[in-house]
Amino acid sequence: MSFVVDPSSPSVRIKLTIAYRGTHYHGWQRQEIPPTWKGETLPDHGLPTVQECLEKAIKHVVRHPLNVVGSSRTDSGVHAKGQVVHFDTDKVQIPVEGFRRAINSRLPGDINVVKLEHTPATFDAIGSTVSKRYQYVIWNAIDRNPHLYGLDNHRWQTLDVDLMRQAAASFVGTHDFVGFAKAGHGRESTVRTIFNCAVSKRKQFVVIGVEGSGFLWNQIRIMAGTLLEIGHGELPADRVRVALESGERRLAGRTAPANGLYLQWIKFASNSEPA
Amino acid sequence: MSFVVDPSSPSVRIKLTIAYRGTHYHGWQRQEIPPTWKGETLPDHGLPTVQECLEKAIKHVVRHPLNVVGSSRTDSGVHAKGQVVHFDTDKVQIPVEGFRRAINSRLPGDINVVKLEHTPATFDAIGSTVSKRYQYVIWNAIDRNPHLYGLDNHRWQTLDVDLMRQAAASFVGTHDFVGFAKAGHGRESTVRTIFNCAVSKRKQFVVIGVEGSGFLWNQIRIMAGTLLEIGHGELPADRVRVALESGERRLAGRTAPANGLYLQWIKFASNSEPA
Repeated sequence: MSFVVDPSSPSVRIKLTIAYRGTHYHGWQRQEIPPTWKGETLPDHGLPTVQECLEKAIKHVVRHPLNVVGSSRTDSGVHAKGQVVHFDTDKVQIPVEGFRRAINSRLPGDINVVKLEHTPATFDAIGSTVSKRYQYVIWNAIDRNPHLYGLDNHRWQTLDVDLMRQAAASFVGTHDFVGFAKAGHGRESTVRTIFNCAVSKRKQFVVIGVEGSGFLWNQIRIMAGTLLEIGHGELPADRVRVALESGERRLAGRTAPANGLYLQWIKFASNSEPA
Repeated sequence: MSFVVDPSSPSVRIKLTIAYRGTHYHGWQRQEIPPTWKGETLPDHGLPTVQECLEKAIKHVVRHPLNVVGSSRTDSGVHAKGQVVHFDTDKVQIPVEGFRRAINSRLPGDINVVKLEHTPATFDAIGSTVSKRYQYVIWNAIDRNPHLYGLDNHRWQTLDVDLMRQAAASFVGTHDFVGFAKAGHGRESTVRTIFNCAVSKRKQFVVIGVEGSGFLWNQIRIMAGTLLEIGHGELPADRVRVALESGERRLAGRTAPANGLYLQWIKFASNSEPA
C-alpha cells in the first residue's frame, strides 16, 4: 500500500459519512445528558457509544489520539444511514479508499464508513450543517416482522395515511417547537424550520420523512408520535397546528420509540464542501 | 371474546407456522448436543431457546402444561420464516385468529406466529415432513450493510455466481452427505435427497436456496460454505461432486456462519394436513 506525504499541509481534515444500526449502542455520544442535568453521577448503561467505537477504530489506523465531531447526536437505539463526522489528522495518509477500508476493518459489523473525503478546514460537521433529513419507519400490519426487530415501530391498527399527510403539512415552515421538545433540551431558542414533512406508504411500510434546519431533543420522535396518534384517530388532524401555536407539550402526542428512527442524510454549506 | 367448546374432541392438535430472528436465541432447542456428547455437563449459554419462549407464551393462553414439537432444530443464530410446530391442548379454545393473536401478544418482538390451524392428530411436525427449503443469504458488496447485522453473511469479494450455479447443480439428487455433516451428527443414515439447489443474484444479494427431504447437522451451512469457496475461486467447481463421491469432510468447504441461514418453508404429507 502506497503512502502519500504532503509536507505543506501538516494537518488534514477528514469528513466521514457513516451508517449504523443503533440497537446495541448507547447513542452517538454520552452527552445526551443535557446541561440542566442535576444528578450527581451520570448513569452507566454498559453499552458503548458509536463515537467511542469509531474513535478507537480510527486511532488504530492513524496511530495518534483524536476527537471525532459528529453532526447529529442520535439517541440510544436510533439508526443512521448518513451520519457525518469530521476529525483532524496530522499524520501521513494512505489513499482515501484504503483509509476508509482500513477503518472499516476495525469496526464492528453494525457500523460502516460509507464515504471518506478530504475536506477544507472550514468544514465543521456541526457548524456547516444546512439541513438534515430523518425517516421514521412504521411497520403497519397485524403481525410484527421478527426480522425487523429493533429496526421499526410496529403498529397493528391500520393507519389513516391521508389524515397523517394532512397533519404533517402543518409542520412545514418556521415554528416554535417548544411543545415538541423533551424537557431539559437545554437550548435557548426553540424555533426551528421544517423544509419538508411527508408521509409515504409502500406495502406494509409507512414512512414519515422530515427535513429541517435542525431539531430539538426528541423533536422528531414527538412529531412522529403525534402523527401516529392522528393516524389512529386518537387525536384530531388539526392537533399539530394547535400544539405548535400553544407550545404546550401535553397537546402533542407521546414520544414514539427510538427503534423506528433513521438519520438519513445531512446537507452542508457549499463553501465548506470539498472542491 | 367467544369460546368454542367441542365436548366430542377433548384433545385438539394445533399446527403453528412461526417466524423468528435467531440472533438472540440459543437455537430452537437445547438438544443441539448430539447423542455422542461425552462432556459431563451441558454448556449454559445464558440465552433462551425459541422453543422455551413459545411454550411459555402458549401456556399463558391455554393455562395447562404442554410440549411443542418443532419440525426443524435450527442452530443458534439461524432464522426462520416458516418453522412449523405442533402441540396438543385439551382445553376450551378461543377462535383460531384470536388464539394466534393471544399467543403473539405474549411473545417477544423477534418471534411471530404467522399461522395457527387445527390439524388432525395424524399430523406430526417431524414425522409428516416431506420437504424443507432453506435459504442462505449473502451480502456481496465491498461494504457491509450495518442494518443487516446478524441477518446475512458478508462477502466483499465479487462471487462468481455462474460457477456457484454450476456446482450447486451437483447437489441435486440422492447422495450420501457424510462429507457435508458436522462430526457427531448422531444419524445412522447419512443419505439425503436434494430436490433443488439454486443460486440467485439480485442487486448485492446472492441467495442459495436448497430444498430437500431433510438435512444432517450443519449440512446446509457446509454446502453453502463449499459453494462460497467455489464462488471465490478457492475451490474448483467440480469439488462438490468430488466431495460427495469421496464422503470426506476435509474436501468440502468451511462451515458458513449461522447468521445467513433462514428456514424458509416446510411441506407435509397431504394426508396429515387439515382437510
